[in-house]
Amino acid sequence: AEVKKIAVIAGDGIGPEVVAEAIKVMKKTEEVFGLSFEFEHGLFGGIAIDEKGTPLPEDTLEMCKKSDAVLLGAVGGPKWDNNSKELRPETGLLGIRKALGLFSNIRPANVFDCLKEASTLKPEVLEGTDLIVVRELTGGIYFGEKFRREGENGQEAVDTCVYNVAEIERIVRQAFEIARTRSKRLASVDKANVLETSRLWRETVNRLASDYPDVEVEHVLVDNCAMQLLRRPSSFDVIVTENMFGDILSDEAAMLTGSIGMLSSASLGEGAFGLYEPVHGSAPDIAGQGIANPIATILSVALMYRLTFGYHEAAEAIERAVKEVLDAGHRTGDIAVDKASAIGTTAMGDLIVNTV
Amino acid sequence: AEVKKIAVIAGDGIGPEVVAEAIKVMKKTEEVFGLSFEFEHGLFGGIAIDEKGTPLPEDTLEMCKKSDAVLLGAVGGPKWDNNSKELRPETGLLGIRKALGLFSNIRPANVFDCLKEASTLKPEVLEGTDLIVVRELTGGIYFGEKFRREGENGQEAVDTCVYNVAEIERIVRQAFEIARTRSKRLASVDKANVLETSRLWRETVNRLASDYPDVEVEHVLVDNCAMQLLRRPSSFDVIVTENMFGDILSDEAAMLTGSIGMLSSASLGEGAFGLYEPVHGSAPDIAGQGIANPIATILSVALMYRLTFGYHEAAEAIERAVKEVLDAGHRTGDIAVDKASAIGTTAMGDLIVNTV
Ligand SMILES: CC(C)[C@H](C(=O)O)[C@@H](O)C(=O)O
Ligand SMILES: CC(C)[C@H](C(=O)O)[C@@H](O)C(=O)O
Repeated sequence: AEVKKIAVIAGDGIGPEVVAEAIKVMKKTEEVFGLSFEFEHGLFGGIAIDEKGTPLPEDTLEMCKKSDAVLLGAVGGPKWDNNSKELRPETGLLGIRKALGLFSNIRPANVFDCLKEASTLKPEVLEGTDLIVVRELTGGIYFGEKFRREGENGQEAVDTCVYNVAEIERIVRQAFEIARTRSKRLASVDKANVLETSRLWRETVNRLASDYPDVEVEHVLVDNCAMQLLRRPSSFDVIVTENMFGDILSDEAAMLTGSIGMLSSASLGEGAFGLYEPVHGSAPDIAGQGIANPIATILSVALMYRLTFGYHEAAEAIERAVKEVLDAGHRTGDIAVDKASAIGTTAMGDLIVNTV
Repeated sequence: AEVKKIAVIAGDGIGPEVVAEAIKVMKKTEEVFGLSFEFEHGLFGGIAIDEKGTPLPEDTLEMCKKSDAVLLGAVGGPKWDNNSKELRPETGLLGIRKALGLFSNIRPANVFDCLKEASTLKPEVLEGTDLIVVRELTGGIYFGEKFRREGENGQEAVDTCVYNVAEIERIVRQAFEIARTRSKRLASVDKANVLETSRLWRETVNRLASDYPDVEVEHVLVDNCAMQLLRRPSSFDVIVTENMFGDILSDEAAMLTGSIGMLSSASLGEGAFGLYEPVHGSAPDIAGQGIANPIATILSVALMYRLTFGYHEAAEAIERAVKEVLDAGHRTGDIAVDKASAIGTTAMGDLIVNTV
């Protein structure tokens, strides 16, 4: 197959460890499915701050722009938590999203049968839960003007939440398209009873709905959604929402599955290009110990194969391999019931590689 | 005792039904504890839109201002959902909060033993959950400038989130004070890695913390809090946060207790004055049928007695009466396991009145 360029930005904490296993799996699929990848590595996040004085160095960004897809590990850690804004790993994350035009974050939240017990929800409530949160990623209060000023009552801080129709349209259309490939149900989440941006959001969803008559649309207020995710998680299929609400709800949705260490995510723009990363963070507390769970990152590769490259067969092989290894009882420490029998990051990666 | 003026705004849906039971309980406490109330009723919400053309009529507001405390039922319903902003019940709600200076919303989320099963969380996870969300109620993105404008890419909508130091200080101090009376743990929730208002929030919390050396402060990012509420609800004591985050998190917290039909809330300003209401909504689907659960509203009266009037003995009597009636097995339909044996709103109110 054509050589695909993969920009690898492993980042901080357990990032490099889990990314290494994902790359092993990609190499195995080169052999088995005749795929071909060229990997290039770049500094990003805390390590880039340490080595280059900025979380998103120019050459890393250039490398990503020239690539067909980006594989990201995780960024951040206590070391950089008290830095000024420009020297924080998160600033790199926001910067790369904007610079690469990744306006859509897609997070499947499904329940792994073998991990059902790990959820704090009752198994019968969780039964059948398999939803996707589509979060707008480059607009809203994250990217609007922010500043301090002297007000009548002393110092005040201001954040601005802005959305234009085009920004809302492209993410909502994408969510409609995804809903079409699934159970054809779309829940649009907003706070239209309070926010002007939400009212524009809702109007836009209603207008676009006529282009997707086969998809059933439900408007859910964000506070109600936070409740309904707990009460009836399995009734949701595709949830689309703006940046800030999506940040909160996608984390809530991920946690309720009990499978947070296993969930993958894609950040997409126009076209096939995408950035893929596990939902979990950099877990500085266990970094360097070789005990991190690489499955979320490996499953992010499967997502990359599907969404960016259309390598469906190879994607399926990865997903099946993960399932088989888990069904055979292998567990990393985070998901092991019997911690004593837990295996390490490399061992888990090897098992999956050998099963692909 | 001194006559206390209670402004009653029963509102829409089941509001009038549950408020009637709460008033019965208040009258019983007049007899038993020698208290004395003067009740005045005002139109508010949807019914005020229908009868006066505005959700918050001037005379209702005046009545509230002259009162010692306000008892609110619930507002809203599908009838008014598509009205323009000025003619929506929620606009009345936001208006009354601002006009009465109710900058703090206090929502205890505790688990009723007899309802543990109603939660979608596993009982062992829920064990010991008893938290309070203190939500800022008159600032932030709810009340900042909002408008539409023509931008470079067509129409755009704007919401502004503003907080000044004084606004943050007063709510945070209140949360510290509440934490002091409990387990002395305060979780302050923000999004300081992205928002300027959150950074000012966090700085303010850190500065005030030195005045409360006995209280342990934890900063939690809002997305993480949405997760941790699910993972370790019982580890939280007092949670303080800004308006929008508080809207989402307080609903999530209420729902996870499984007791949402039983939870009360207080909205406070400077001084003892407060507005008290059940957490649940107007439930238009069951309005007028005499089957609504009045307990959340009755417990809101207990909260009023404690926080506004310092009638601790009477408050305790109400709480004890509710517990006894529930322990004796009486249930309204929403909380009954055996729906056939459920009792109605008035019957539940009578039982509690007779037990006070
Ligand atoms: C680190 C932070 C800026 C980021 C966000 O809020 O978008 C993270 O929470 C996420 O969801 O990817
Ligand atoms: C009705 C709505 C405006 C209101 C809010 O968001 O504050 C409600 O959700 C609440 O929490 O009291």
